[in-house]
Amino acid sequence: MKIDSLSIRRQDGALQILDQTLLPLEERWLTVPDAATMITHIQRLAVRGAPLIGVAAALALAEEASGDISREALRARANELRAARPTAVNLMHAMDRMIAKLDGGLAAIRAEAEAIYAEDVRLCLEMANRAAAFIHDGDGLLTHCNTGGLATAGVGTALGAIRAAWMSGKKIHVFVDETRPLLQGARLTAWELGKLGIPHTLICDSMAANLMRAGRVQHVLVGADRIALNGDVANKVGTYGLAVQAKHHGVPFTVVAPSTTLDPACLTGAEIPIEERNPEEVRGGRAPLATPVWNPAFDVAPRALITRIVLEDREF
Amino acid sequence: MKIDSLSIRRQDGALQILDQTLLPLEERWLTVPDAATMITHIQRLAVRGAPLIGVAAALALAEEASGDISREALRARANELRAARPTAVNLMHAMDRMIAKLDGGLAAIRAEAEAIYAEDVRLCLEMANRAAAFIHDGDGLLTHCNTGGLATAGVGTALGAIRAAWMSGKKIHVFVDETRPLLQGARLTAWELGKLGIPHTLICDSMAANLMRAGRVQHVLVGADRIALNGDVANKVGTYGLAVQAKHHGVPFTVVAPSTTLDPACLTGAEIPIEERNPEEVRGGRAPLATPVWNPAFDVAPRALITRIVLEDREF
Repeated sequence: MKIDSLSIRRQDGALQILDQTLLPLEERWLTVPDAATMITHIQRLAVRGAPLIGVAAALALAEEASGDISREALRARANELRAARPTAVNLMHAMDRMIAKLDGGLAAIRAEAEAIYAEDVRLCLEMANRAAAFIHDGDGLLTHCNTGGLATAGVGTALGAIRAAWMSGKKIHVFVDETRPLLQGARLTAWELGKLGIPHTLICDSMAANLMRAGRVQHVLVGADRIALNGDVANKVGTYGLAVQAKHHGVPFTVVAPSTTLDPACLTGAEIPIEERNPEEVRGGRAPLATPVWNPAFDVAPRALITRIVLEDREF
Repeated sequence: MKIDSLSIRRQDGALQILDQTLLPLEERWLTVPDAATMITHIQRLAVRGAPLIGVAAALALAEEASGDISREALRARANELRAARPTAVNLMHAMDRMIAKLDGGLAAIRAEAEAIYAEDVRLCLEMANRAAAFIHDGDGLLTHCNTGGLATAGVGTALGAIRAAWMSGKKIHVFVDETRPLLQGARLTAWELGKLGIPHTLICDSMAANLMRAGRVQHVLVGADRIALNGDVANKVGTYGLAVQAKHHGVPFTVVAPSTTLDPACLTGAEIPIEERNPEEVRGGRAPLATPVWNPAFDVAPRALITRIVLEDREF
């Protein structure tokens, strides 16, 4: 099967990832021979985006399985991959599926990894088309973080929907939050929108409310890293504040995510673990070195602030 | 008269400013011999903060008046200084006062500049003490941008109030928005709070709403660049979004500013001109070079979202 997306591919018999930390300045592909290497790349965000992390972990485990490794060691690798990042639940779902196939040998393991990849491509298309129906001709859209081909194996979640709306001929304009601290909006979403030729404007996260008040945003669309049973959504930090602002301004707020993001074991958003990352991401070399920092990577938007959640097969 | 504040001073007979663009990595003082040099420093934000800009412009005009210059040329310089930045009204007030003294000769011009300096020092103390009364022992405080000794000739506006509360023995913790795009919170406020020994935590602008929801913020305090007749407040971009979030969470939102920030000629905030700055401030070398950007330096918080405005002599 051909593995060949915007950010992950198999080429010359090797699994490769596009190093997203170097974008948009450089497009460098890295070979990933095993699980340990993939864990490093996931943790330093060379591979990111909840759906893509699940796919990448599955493909890396299949890569590891091709070598001389015992079933028990492989199970241990799967569990290490599973724990690489705590908030996105797709990763845990993908690893659970892979672990269930370990007894089937290399062929079964490879087939499952490829199935996870192919499923993500398909889910993206279905989500994109479903959510695009809620985007109207002439809309100003606001999106946060990166949810496109760099965050999934396919066209993306929220950005996939924006792309589908654009390709169906709707005239839209996309406002892109830069998404501090790691600037996935400025670095990745702006790069993807530029490649797609979709009109867009980059703003700082702190400017979004002003666009809403000025009537320039008709719809906010974001992705999700995990969705609790009650519909609370964990997503990139800043999502909660945006949801508050959208509610205040009467702007619809849509979450686009695959059903692999659902976590019925989490009753409410309060149970979703929120990863805290290195303070230096916030200090950025400009704040005093001794300055204490709070750096949660995600936050939770409560269901009451969300207009709709669009999955690949339904919305609610 | 001794001119000697955290960010502007006269030393060895020369007017000097602390180059705030280099903080906190380097504390470099620059000599400012004339108005043209000060305009450059104001526009590149080496000197910033609405009250400080007014004081610095007045002192620079006095410096220029010491040289061999005609009254008409001096008037032209005053008007150039007056136009150096469009949003802060203190600058216009200060220049109007200076222009009124041009006929009085060098002594009158110098005396007026020093009076403007001394008045800002006094207004800061009065504002700080007045606003500090609204800060309670144990409060978590949130502030945006820099409003301390680097933004005024004195102890500051919002940060002056925080300092006064701390010095009166109240236990407080200050959350500092990094304040994109130019990071005045991360670079300047964190540096000032570190020098003052006040407990603080730096966050990205996108994280403020989460602290409010978690009950860790009892009070938001910000400064102002201009206050319209109806009480609408122009301040650093991001202030409006914060005000929306504070309202949503029932957190008091206080503006601390000198009466020189009032502009009765502006009936509402809609009339306040909002300066737009270089897109590269937002792109920051990380977004694709071709990405279009919207970069307003300020926004307007409507009176309805503001709990109180504290001036040096009253609150409303």
